[in-house]
Amino acid sequence: MPVQHAQPISRLIQELTKLPGVGEKTASRLALHILRASQEDAEALARAILEVKEKIRLCSQCFNLTDQDPCRICQDPRRNREVICVVSGPEDLIALEKSGSFRGLYHVLHGVLSPLEGVGPKDLKINELLSRLQGGKVKEVIMATNPSVEGEATAQYLSQIIKPLGIRVTRIARGVPMGGDLQYIDEVTLSKSLENRSPL
Amino acid sequence: MPVQHAQPISRLIQELTKLPGVGEKTASRLALHILRASQEDAEALARAILEVKEKIRLCSQCFNLTDQDPCRICQDPRRNREVICVVSGPEDLIALEKSGSFRGLYHVLHGVLSPLEGVGPKDLKINELLSRLQGGKVKEVIMATNPSVEGEATAQYLSQIIKPLGIRVTRIARGVPMGGDLQYIDEVTLSKSLENRSPL
Repeated sequence: MPVQHAQPISRLIQELTKLPGVGEKTASRLALHILRASQEDAEALARAILEVKEKIRLCSQCFNLTDQDPCRICQDPRRNREVICVVSGPEDLIALEKSGSFRGLYHVLHGVLSPLEGVGPKDLKINELLSRLQGGKVKEVIMATNPSVEGEATAQYLSQIIKPLGIRVTRIARGVPMGGDLQYIDEVTLSKSLENRSPL
Repeated sequence: MPVQHAQPISRLIQELTKLPGVGEKTASRLALHILRASQEDAEALARAILEVKEKIRLCSQCFNLTDQDPCRICQDPRRNREVICVVSGPEDLIALEKSGSFRGLYHVLHGVLSPLEGVGPKDLKINELLSRLQGGKVKEVIMATNPSVEGEATAQYLSQIIKPLGIRVTRIARGVPMGGDLQYIDEVTLSKSLENRSPL
């Protein structure tokens, strides 16, 4: 019976392997790093973990993660309240914000429709989206779910519900990514990029 | 100025990027995972981090990480006290223990000699190793530092100090790894494997 890590180290490794993409080797490396780090750094990390659980809520309007309600975006008077961009998760919202090219509001679904994994319309923030569209102020809803099978299906499903309300529904363009190399791009993307070509 | 993550999330991401091999994207993914995880899991992780800092010490004999002093290996009466295996870090000790093929004691140097990075003999647990060899009980010291430039140099350096004490000094074999493919193995390893060939 070979000697393993001391108990507190094994326990930390075990907790770290619960994180996504962290196997036993990585967890072991992280644990030894934490052991060697300063007491302050270890405490700061532990505190940040607890604080995030304590302070972060979902915005009651857009359902983004926030420490104030409504969130900073929903509160911002400079944002265009006539356009709502629908994303599946907070990561996608952050990615779009980083691009700096959208000045409307967001709506976070917290998932996509996936019958195989048992995710139906009731499991997403869809009713909440429809309530937001009631006032008649929103002129356009942009579907910015991922260009995956589930993302496309979710966009399609929502557009069928929203269009009857007299609101314009659009989908982000699918095409060749900037800097991409045509020879390595899959056929579905290439065919989409031809289909959605724009005049020069 | 695009909207970023809420403050507690940014802070957690910032703390997570201090971990080795964790960039901003990974940290962001980990932070969102922690946000979605149960309160219990988040607390268990935070607690494990604090506990490891609080309870883990270096063994006063072999300098391995331990929650009891002397450590379990140094205390174990079944281990052969005549052979000491010198490793550069606790990770290497665990790897050797997992192989289950060493039943002696260890000595953890906590690094290797590296003049370029300013690591000299005083920065490693070398004097502590020499004290352990004073009693005259140790018959063999196995150098199990990595087969890298620094690891080899450290093994050489230590053997020059220890041999005059009348103690046998050996080095772990360098050769082709089991399951390896000769055509992909570097020349230095191949030449070592020829040099250190053994009779069949």
